Amino acid sequence: MSSKQVVLYDTTLRDGAQTEGISLSVSDKLQICERLDDLGIPYIEGGWPASNPKEMEFFRRGKRLRLKKAVLTCFGSTRKANTSVGKDPQIQSLLAAGTEVVTVFGKSWDLHVRDVFRVPLEENLRMIADTVGYLKRRGLTVMYDAEHFFDGYRENPEYAMKTLKAAAEEGAGTLILCDTNGGSIPSAVAAVVGEVRRRFPAPLGIHCHNDTDLAVANSIAAVEAGVLQIQGTINGYGERCGNANLCSIIPVLQLKMGYRCVPPARLKTLSEAAHFVAEVCNMRPDDHQPFVGPSAFAHKGGVHINAVKKNPRTYEQIDPSAVGNRRRILVSELGGKSTILEKAQELRLELGRDAEEAKRFLKRVQELEAQGYHFEAAEGSLELLMQRAYKRFKRFFDLQGFRVMVEKDEKGAMTSEAAIKLKVDGVTEHSVAEGDGPVHALDKALRKALAEFYPAVAEMRLVDFKVRVLESRAGTAARVRVLIESQDAKESWWTMGVSENIIEASWQALVDSIEYKLLKDRKA
Amino acid sequence: MSSKQVVLYDTTLRDGAQTEGISLSVSDKLQICERLDDLGIPYIEGGWPASNPKEMEFFRRGKRLRLKKAVLTCFGSTRKANTSVGKDPQIQSLLAAGTEVVTVFGKSWDLHVRDVFRVPLEENLRMIADTVGYLKRRGLTVMYDAEHFFDGYRENPEYAMKTLKAAAEEGAGTLILCDTNGGSIPSAVAAVVGEVRRRFPAPLGIHCHNDTDLAVANSIAAVEAGVLQIQGTINGYGERCGNANLCSIIPVLQLKMGYRCVPPARLKTLSEAAHFVAEVCNMRPDDHQPFVGPSAFAHKGGVHINAVKKNPRTYEQIDPSAVGNRRRILVSELGGKSTILEKAQELRLELGRDAEEAKRFLKRVQELEAQGYHFEAAEGSLELLMQRAYKRFKRFFDLQGFRVMVEKDEKGAMTSEAAIKLKVDGVTEHSVAEGDGPVHALDKALRKALAEFYPAVAEMRLVDFKVRVLESRAGTAARVRVLIESQDAKESWWTMGVSENIIEASWQALVDSIEYKLLKDRKA
Repeated sequence: MSSKQVVLYDTTLRDGAQTEGISLSVSDKLQICERLDDLGIPYIEGGWPASNPKEMEFFRRGKRLRLKKAVLTCFGSTRKANTSVGKDPQIQSLLAAGTEVVTVFGKSWDLHVRDVFRVPLEENLRMIADTVGYLKRRGLTVMYDAEHFFDGYRENPEYAMKTLKAAAEEGAGTLILCDTNGGSIPSAVAAVVGEVRRRFPAPLGIHCHNDTDLAVANSIAAVEAGVLQIQGTINGYGERCGNANLCSIIPVLQLKMGYRCVPPARLKTLSEAAHFVAEVCNMRPDDHQPFVGPSAFAHKGGVHINAVKKNPRTYEQIDPSAVGNRRRILVSELGGKSTILEKAQELRLELGRDAEEAKRFLKRVQELEAQGYHFEAAEGSLELLMQRAYKRFKRFFDLQGFRVMVEKDEKGAMTSEAAIKLKVDGVTEHSVAEGDGPVHALDKALRKALAEFYPAVAEMRLVDFKVRVLESRAGTAARVRVLIESQDAKESWWTMGVSENIIEASWQALVDSIEYKLLKDRKA
Repeated sequence: MSSKQVVLYDTTLRDGAQTEGISLSVSDKLQICERLDDLGIPYIEGGWPASNPKEMEFFRRGKRLRLKKAVLTCFGSTRKANTSVGKDPQIQSLLAAGTEVVTVFGKSWDLHVRDVFRVPLEENLRMIADTVGYLKRRGLTVMYDAEHFFDGYRENPEYAMKTLKAAAEEGAGTLILCDTNGGSIPSAVAAVVGEVRRRFPAPLGIHCHNDTDLAVANSIAAVEAGVLQIQGTINGYGERCGNANLCSIIPVLQLKMGYRCVPPARLKTLSEAAHFVAEVCNMRPDDHQPFVGPSAFAHKGGVHINAVKKNPRTYEQIDPSAVGNRRRILVSELGGKSTILEKAQELRLELGRDAEEAKRFLKRVQELEAQGYHFEAAEGSLELLMQRAYKRFKRFFDLQGFRVMVEKDEKGAMTSEAAIKLKVDGVTEHSVAEGDGPVHALDKALRKALAEFYPAVAEMRLVDFKVRVLESRAGTAARVRVLIESQDAKESWWTMGVSENIIEASWQALVDSIEYKLLKDRKA
């Protein structure tokens, strides 16, 4: 494949930060910025300096980052109506941000000019021209975001084209066609991009939102129709349904269509970068996310697993390592012996190829899954189960008993207390702790009891907690499955417990979580 | 727009059930099936009868459903290599399922025939022809899923076409081109569909997976290139990155492209259907999901809200009500009063039209929702909240306190005990009970305490219990929402509690559940 070039423009820090549920501090933004640079993204839009003081602080500190290649850009709007551009504070803040590249957005849909700005259509054209010209004369590189271009073009193509012309004539280097409301479909995007290209020699860009579930497709269609710049965000963050997802666009263009987006060696860090950004944004990663999600190359069912062993291409669209992801074999009642042996290998347990042992273990997994265990969701517990079954495991402690008490008094105040008695190497430890709820109290008491014997317990923390009610029709006597995610400086892992008693189920998951950590450290 | 026709084929119950994390019971599947019928989906693939005994039970019970229009189909593979089709138990199970339509999948990629089946290419063609022919001769309508068609066509177009020919010549009614590994891009899909159409008069279908984030786009491209049937799942469930999402495909085709997929009145139930299926699958709904997610028409930031008030088209790609969704104004209490008054009317609370009272109540609802309450899911609790706010409610009892104790002894035996002290009309009652877990014990103790005063409590029972962890990143100190469904001879109702303490959240939901029952009886 030839290596055709496109230019990526990331707006995670600006448009992505609009996501319901995301709120980034300046230091969050700086961290993400460095990571984007590391991934090989050439343009990073840092924010809209006029929108709040944090933004300006970001640009101040952003200048001191030692970016390898990325260029930081700032974002702003055209000048106010009926105002001199030199006296518009919003325009002045763009200069103050001090970036070499500025992206200015203006309205390309006459409906917005009439119904929202409520100014004559001609004045809007002057607003665009004045703003671009002013910034150009101050030596900046100016990109022009034509907001609502596709809606505008559909309803008044002549006016939409005039807005582009106003920006181009004043020296806007790239004209970005924006599907601001995200309502376009690929065939329409391709047709409009084609028409604009016939009339403008300037390089074009595309900026899509995902309201039709087609943001990636619309971006790809625009590239096929000749745009050079693609704007998007990591993990598709953005308001409403999000922006075009760069984590999908990059591998599609680079691995499927022969474009060069980022250096191939950097592409191998894509999954890690996606998770890093999710973590900093405090967003739950989407397990099923294309290319970078943990389920993207996960195989369930014996037939698939068998085929993938014979030839990975049978059920894998690409080699997962190309995007830094990995194959996962899901162990479930649907799988067979070979799945167990594969999994053991993946976990480097070196069980040998004893088929009888594997068969017995598989039976145990099937029994537990019939009770409601669900090992594909908790690989930490699966590994412990394997270690225990194969007798390669010495328990770290023996529980003598615990007691959890939750009280509500007359005034409605709640108390939760847990007491635990356990033995480590013959030494009895008895601990008690209070918590926000019974599981929190139990967690604290367990750590307290173990701290002296296993100081490493202090290095880990619980980061996620899920409860699922099984056979829910049994009402409050139903069986529940508790999943716990824990994390230390190096990795994170899921463990599980199942019981009719939610306290017992949580206890099992807590114990597995700690034993997994200790076992992992022992192996290392 | 003219009304062009496409035929939807839902595979949520079969391919969707492959999703990592989804496990459907027979009664879950029956419920989803009825809902899909209600939405106006014409074909519903129920499962692969040979894959496990639950599937056959579904078909047995599915036959008794009174579906309005939908046709239930079953799914299976071509016969085994070198076996007589009449003696293949998998084929016999397709007949036993008793549906009028059967979808058979076969291999269209020579790589699979060689590397996985390990049979001559000719034998695979016979397997396809024999299977389709055999089922046709037994009077069934047969659809043919050409697995891996796009990968197969790319590498060996002649062979891929031969597999279609084998199915078509034996009478397969629709040939479905499958992008099984989900690695295709829209321009390639359109080109291949175009070539197949030139060579086959038979109606074509499309079945896409979302590994490139392009399943919706690939399906749309196939429709533009002339396919008639579209296979997909609700919410895009499916293994790895999921299947083509019908919740996006339906509105794009129907609202943007002039196709008729479902009756327009049913389209207005799309959001509700999507949430219902998520609930039954026990999957966390994706807030940012196009068209049906709660963020899809949510407006943050004053500029957008202002513009939307002037003209909704400025920032909304479609009218949200067309898909049964609604506009949400974030951080502002705009326009909620009337909703509250409507709701009160619906509940026959006769609150009058006191706007100030409604406004105060709305504020209270908003505060509680910000804490994690979710009244849409628990109208029982909403009604009680209204009754309490409007002071039309006298509490049935006053809690003096409760204590819940869970113990695990040295042998691992668990005990759960709850003690409750409460007052009814000045009389103190103190009760204690044991249960399978702490919530069960609490439920039993509460009923015991109230039995004498309110014998009607014995008429009701708890039938469902759900726990969702909110802000899950806080680990075991996270806030949880408990939902409880209760039922008496006449109706069922949902109530809710929220707390960092799961026992307290369960208690709130239990109390609401009982008070709702008593209030309902008092009104009657």
